Amino acid sequence: MVTASRSIDALFDLESRVAGILSFEAALARVSAQLGVIPASAGDAIVNQCDVAHFDLSEIEREAEPAGNEAIPTIDRLRALVSATDEAAATYVHWGATSQDAIDTALVLALRDALGKIDEQLAQVIASLADLAELHAATPMVGRTLLQEAAPTTFGFKVAGWLDALLRHRTRLTQVRDEARVLQFGGAVGNHAALGDDGPRIAVALAAELELTNPELAWHSIRDRLANVATTLAATVGTLGKMARDISLLAQSEIAEVREPSAVGRGRSSTMPQKRNPVGCAAILAAAVRAPGLAATMLSSMPQEHERALGGWQAEWATLPELVSIAHGAVVHAAFVAAGLEVDSDRMRQNIVATNGLIFAESLAFALNARLGRARGSEALGRAIQRRADSGTTLRAALEADPTVTATLSDDELSAVFDVRRVVGVAEQVARRVAAAARASVGPGAKPR
Amino acid sequence: MVTASRSIDALFDLESRVAGILSFEAALARVSAQLGVIPASAGDAIVNQCDVAHFDLSEIEREAEPAGNEAIPTIDRLRALVSATDEAAATYVHWGATSQDAIDTALVLALRDALGKIDEQLAQVIASLADLAELHAATPMVGRTLLQEAAPTTFGFKVAGWLDALLRHRTRLTQVRDEARVLQFGGAVGNHAALGDDGPRIAVALAAELELTNPELAWHSIRDRLANVATTLAATVGTLGKMARDISLLAQSEIAEVREPSAVGRGRSSTMPQKRNPVGCAAILAAAVRAPGLAATMLSSMPQEHERALGGWQAEWATLPELVSIAHGAVVHAAFVAAGLEVDSDRMRQNIVATNGLIFAESLAFALNARLGRARGSEALGRAIQRRADSGTTLRAALEADPTVTATLSDDELSAVFDVRRVVGVAEQVARRVAAAARASVGPGAKPR
Amino acid sequence: MVTASRSIDALFDLESRVAGILSFEAALARVSAQLGVIPASAGDAIVNQCDVAHFDLSEIEREAEPAGNEAIPTIDRLRALVSATDEAAATYVHWGATSQDAIDTALVLALRDALGKIDEQLAQVIASLADLAELHAATPMVGRTLLQEAAPTTFGFKVAGWLDALLRHRTRLTQVRDEARVLQFGGAVGNHAALGDDGPRIAVALAAELELTNPELAWHSIRDRLANVATTLAATVGTLGKMARDISLLAQSEIAEVREPSAVGRGRSSTMPQKRNPVGCAAILAAAVRAPGLAATMLSSMPQEHERALGGWQAEWATLPELVSIAHGAVVHAAFVAAGLEVDSDRMRQNIVATNGLIFAESLAFALNARLGRARGSEALGRAIQRRADSGTTLRAALEADPTVTATLSDDELSAVFDVRRVVGVAEQVARRVAAAARASVGPGAKPR
Amino acid sequence: MVTASRSIDALFDLESRVAGILSFEAALARVSAQLGVIPASAGDAIVNQCDVAHFDLSEIEREAEPAGNEAIPTIDRLRALVSATDEAAATYVHWGATSQDAIDTALVLALRDALGKIDEQLAQVIASLADLAELHAATPMVGRTLLQEAAPTTFGFKVAGWLDALLRHRTRLTQVRDEARVLQFGGAVGNHAALGDDGPRIAVALAAELELTNPELAWHSIRDRLANVATTLAATVGTLGKMARDISLLAQSEIAEVREPSAVGRGRSSTMPQKRNPVGCAAILAAAVRAPGLAATMLSSMPQEHERALGGWQAEWATLPELVSIAHGAVVHAAFVAAGLEVDSDRMRQNIVATNGLIFAESLAFALNARLGRARGSEALGRAIQRRADSGTTLRAALEADPTVTATLSDDELSAVFDVRRVVGVAEQVARRVAAAARASVGPGAKPR
Repeated sequence: MVTASRSIDALFDLESRVAGILSFEAALARVSAQLGVIPASAGDAIVNQCDVAHFDLSEIEREAEPAGNEAIPTIDRLRALVSATDEAAATYVHWGATSQDAIDTALVLALRDALGKIDEQLAQVIASLADLAELHAATPMVGRTLLQEAAPTTFGFKVAGWLDALLRHRTRLTQVRDEARVLQFGGAVGNHAALGDDGPRIAVALAAELELTNPELAWHSIRDRLANVATTLAATVGTLGKMARDISLLAQSEIAEVREPSAVGRGRSSTMPQKRNPVGCAAILAAAVRAPGLAATMLSSMPQEHERALGGWQAEWATLPELVSIAHGAVVHAAFVAAGLEVDSDRMRQNIVATNGLIFAESLAFALNARLGRARGSEALGRAIQRRADSGTTLRAALEADPTVTATLSDDELSAVFDVRRVVGVAEQVARRVAAAARASVGPGAKPR
Repeated sequence: MVTASRSIDALFDLESRVAGILSFEAALARVSAQLGVIPASAGDAIVNQCDVAHFDLSEIEREAEPAGNEAIPTIDRLRALVSATDEAAATYVHWGATSQDAIDTALVLALRDALGKIDEQLAQVIASLADLAELHAATPMVGRTLLQEAAPTTFGFKVAGWLDALLRHRTRLTQVRDEARVLQFGGAVGNHAALGDDGPRIAVALAAELELTNPELAWHSIRDRLANVATTLAATVGTLGKMARDISLLAQSEIAEVREPSAVGRGRSSTMPQKRNPVGCAAILAAAVRAPGLAATMLSSMPQEHERALGGWQAEWATLPELVSIAHGAVVHAAFVAAGLEVDSDRMRQNIVATNGLIFAESLAFALNARLGRARGSEALGRAIQRRADSGTTLRAALEADPTVTATLSDDELSAVFDVRRVVGVAEQVARRVAAAARASVGPGAKPR
Repeated sequence: MVTASRSIDALFDLESRVAGILSFEAALARVSAQLGVIPASAGDAIVNQCDVAHFDLSEIEREAEPAGNEAIPTIDRLRALVSATDEAAATYVHWGATSQDAIDTALVLALRDALGKIDEQLAQVIASLADLAELHAATPMVGRTLLQEAAPTTFGFKVAGWLDALLRHRTRLTQVRDEARVLQFGGAVGNHAALGDDGPRIAVALAAELELTNPELAWHSIRDRLANVATTLAATVGTLGKMARDISLLAQSEIAEVREPSAVGRGRSSTMPQKRNPVGCAAILAAAVRAPGLAATMLSSMPQEHERALGGWQAEWATLPELVSIAHGAVVHAAFVAAGLEVDSDRMRQNIVATNGLIFAESLAFALNARLGRARGSEALGRAIQRRADSGTTLRAALEADPTVTATLSDDELSAVFDVRRVVGVAEQVARRVAAAARASVGPGAKPR
Repeated sequence: MVTASRSIDALFDLESRVAGILSFEAALARVSAQLGVIPASAGDAIVNQCDVAHFDLSEIEREAEPAGNEAIPTIDRLRALVSATDEAAATYVHWGATSQDAIDTALVLALRDALGKIDEQLAQVIASLADLAELHAATPMVGRTLLQEAAPTTFGFKVAGWLDALLRHRTRLTQVRDEARVLQFGGAVGNHAALGDDGPRIAVALAAELELTNPELAWHSIRDRLANVATTLAATVGTLGKMARDISLLAQSEIAEVREPSAVGRGRSSTMPQKRNPVGCAAILAAAVRAPGLAATMLSSMPQEHERALGGWQAEWATLPELVSIAHGAVVHAAFVAAGLEVDSDRMRQNIVATNGLIFAESLAFALNARLGRARGSEALGRAIQRRADSGTTLRAALEADPTVTATLSDDELSAVFDVRRVVGVAEQVARRVAAAARASVGPGAKPR
């Protein structure tokens, strides 16, 4: 599907999942042998067979259904392979572990990589948006509220809004990545009952071996860390969706202030050659429609029964990878769109002009009210807006024809009201400041492709 | 994933989607030629190339991303293939259609098949549950509310509750299947602008050719029928989840009134050989956790922009097939569980006995209150419950030691209070009635496998 | 909240809920007395006290929390009131019922009324949209796909798309209203264990008394009918959201093809007097954002435990009324917007003109390709589009300067390509047909207010 | 509704919302006067009228609907009140602000208080669970996976799992509370266009006055902080739901290892006096069903249009308060349940005994396999399990009758296998460690009530 990410999907496909289970089993055998919990020869014999190439994936898939999960047939097969070379060693396959230990640890390993890829792309988006915010810090454009033209702003300020949020998302994603990088190892009911005091010793070594952290206790049915990953990803997609919403609205034919980057075969219509469809925004917005439901599923699955769950755990299996995949897809599209966004600052200025000055109504209201009081000020403003509509002229011309106004505001003062640069002065400063902070955060390494 | 359905996934995978697009294009060419809208030779030339085996799927997948959808590269390739044999005919590939016409029609064709498969399985579930409801219409068991033992019921009555709902779901699914079996064909903005009056004529013939209904107008951005499919499936999964919740609770080691069917390799624990895990229920419950979020996504995607949407449509692509897949997975698991459910009616009776008569407290309250009034009746009941707790005896023994009670209810009357058959008399009738209705609805053909 | 509906909220507030419980208790007492199950005098005594004015709502609210639901304190209080006038009658309060019987029946009664109100408003929307579809059946406007100008359509055709879906929604809502109008009455575990054969007799009479249908069996933990109500409402809101999305996009300052109706105090900005904010669309779109999550909650709550649930049932209490309320709010806003929508057909025509003919590119492509074949036709079209862009002229002027084109299409043929009436001919017919069907469905009674 | 929280609902009701808007307006007037942006007298005149008691709430509610939000009529009324005492001052009401500035700031103020209340209750839960984890660190009980008896654990270890997660949730909630405590102040399009350089100066002072932080820029349509509040609350409810799921399962009549605390009027059945319904768990589980949908709505609302949104913002209004309310309700119920939970450690031991030793199968498997190798070990174990089933004896007795076993494991070794204290040794240590960390985190102040 266009909205998912093939490179992420590969991290979570059956082959990768089985490989992850085998990484767990190999590491477990290695450290258990090092600690003398299992014979050294058994450790070697097991490690040697932990290669996904030896495993028939379609067989595992078939047997996983009745077994209830894919670790069970994988470990059966591993045991058979080990047994064929060292019968005694086969006893020590999966020693002290439960199938969920292997599956969850494999998940965590894949998640670590996937979140790393998302972070890289997010840094790209941030770097590109920082350039845009800086470049267009003072580029005036129409600000719009409730889809109506409202008051002037700058494009850099608008970009800074997206950027500022994405900096927060990146920080949060780093936190959840660190938090979720946690070993699963507890045995049948999570308390190392089978291994006794060896359990915690192995856990410490196993976490170190896999470069994971060792949690206070097993989290077979305690899933807050994964839920946190899910919701943090979904919120990031939400902000990317906000950016895509804005870009796609600005790219409407009638507004035409920005366009998605062009590329061969990109955004074509099969029947309308004049179109350049904003397909990047479409993909991001689709992700933003999908992410909430997937995040909700992760939250719904949390009340898991006792030591290991019936249903809630299984509900996570497809859901979290899917969410990670669409988050990656969204950020890849965002990186492409942000890096090559075509900004038409002339059109932005024309769209301001086309409002006939109405976009300065707020600015004008402040100037009039400060002098005339709100009652008389509002009256004068209303009169000017009506006169403008009737005569088809500009708001300024309408004002200049009003003796109350001309008696109140000098020509210079009126010019100041309609001076877009003055009106958006703060916007420019903010845009530059956020751009600078963003650049500092991603460093020089994150160059837009 | 264990919770999805491979046979359904195949209906919606890339190969099937491309094949569906080609079915649309072939039918369009055929009927357009028949109606004289395109040359007859062009029709043949196009139809001849509409074979998915001629298409490089990985290329289509790669080009779909920048293009925005997979119909565009598929149609490009089809045009190239046709052109190689009949250059003039290539002009008439996809004549009058837009890419969404092909994609949506392909979806609808797949959906029709998938809903048919779900219906077959649902008929199996219904047939098996009808047997269970009939067989155990009078099998007494503990009824439980808020997870507390409450009052007696029968297992058949419990099954009848699931069954009665599933009959409604099956009717609703038939309705939505009929409703959603609808051609998509409208051209760029849905109004046949390119074809003029030929448009409606082709639409009628095309719908007939594909055995679809011809809608009043194109539904490119009007998605209520699909949303309706989604929510109807999700609600069905919800009821299957209710059944699985009940079965898994009854299958708890401490209650042990039912067990999932056994089979080689099914429900094993990797470390605890004594266990038989209810993996069917786990899969169904996982589906019930996942379906609501997917249905919500389909609802969220409905407010689609103008004539064809930006984001909302794309959000459907993975979501609806996923939901169909887990619905099918859930109903397949339910069919297996229902067909082979092991019901331990002895244990059900023992669990009634183990309440020491407390489960007849409601029955008793009615008998006492009718004679003594609620105030004195409640007092007598409370006294008996306390006495039973203190002495470790049964509620009946405690009552027999209470002169107020013995003065109020004769021994026969007391026996009637504790006569489970009498208490659950209505339950039996209902169970038989629902079972009969269920059998009538599925007919003799739906035999449990 | 602006997005909810106060008139609906009132149907589900505490006072109405308690009144609903009392309606159930009064009807139960009345029919039980009629059938001789309880003394006639007790029936009268109970019915006489079933007046919500006698009940201290804040006390009930306070006691509901520890008790677990509000029926328990309500029935306690009813019993006390009855006891004060007729001690013996107090025994027969709530005779044979469980608290969920009263709560669910009260819910169903409120739902029946609420769905009736929604239906009335929906008929208004349909009547107004039918007028718009008819009036503007032939009003040409720009059709837009992926937020880009695509090909011509008519406003009536666009309205017909909304309308056609709303007709389906209204039919579905009528179905679910009928289906959900179902008595709840089963006693502690749903099987009338306390009443025996009197149970079904009372159920029949009670359903008749309350003008509800009598279900096959109690549905304390079988919630498919309510889930169906929820999702059907949510899908209706989704289609209203589609309508509001379109209207708000068309109402953008830069497009200005429609405006929401004006009214005193409506859509004002506190600082920008020139604005008319589309607040009706905002409310509808907010409802469309909210409805999916609420519908998902109803689906998530379905797997309820055994005979009465722990958590799932309670999750419905606030959720379903909230969803009904926002659905009603959305349809009320839609009725207002549809009844007074200001359509600027001049602006629609101007926006077509402003595309410089590009919007006829699809129409042109068909004409050229039919004559030149797709390869040469596409080339000629591309050339004309480029020439138009370079020269700032119209597409037609660019074509007339191209000898290939002039040699291919006569002036009349070219005029036909750019004749919007011809291009949108089918749209007009469809719009009129859907409008007629809509009017027939609502009858003459549903006049827009 | 039982599942919400009245004390939280009050923070977000109309009166509180209007009061919050007035707090914003008063603070704005005060600091604007202090900074010389508005006349000092105007500041005083405005501040004096910012008292919610002067406002007709039903009028505001009525006018909010057409206006689009409740700030507009509130500010109109404030202006009228000020005007009545100081006509000139009325001009400076709401000076430089937009209605969303007032509404969002009022929301943030209420949220700060609400999150504070949630934190207090969460500290109570944590303190009570720390006591339980410590007290029952070594209390053996059956560990259960997939709702089947699996292997021994301790109740303290189980509690430690809930506790460990709740410590993380509390940290996260503190983070989001700090992050979300952020002033909204930007004027019409968020860039202080009306105030120019005065804008940032006022913002700094206003944030200080209201004890909020001053953000880099206005966040009218950038809602990640609120989404983060929502999902963090929902995940906390998810973990409380896990705790409630476990408790309610353990409280089943047939398992009876724990009971919710009793209290007058708590958990009664209207017809079954012997029951004590786990109504606290029911309320928490209901919250856990509801929270995901509400959190999803907050995520779905994120892609808000341009400078201020059409629909997305409005969708938040009821959703976030509802989620805060159910989160508070859940944590209040959890505090009550945790503080008074009745733990029956005798019953926990009996339930272990009732497994006839099968719960030690994993422990036994390790002992046998280590000596005999997995193949022969599994065989011996399977034999013993079968023999136990056939003879109705204990697993140990079955083993003692098996010469292979007696030749392999000495009596002392066999005793060690079945020694629950040895088996759960690690569990005890973990429980004590987590309890100690929890106590350290909440300090001595958080005493269970």
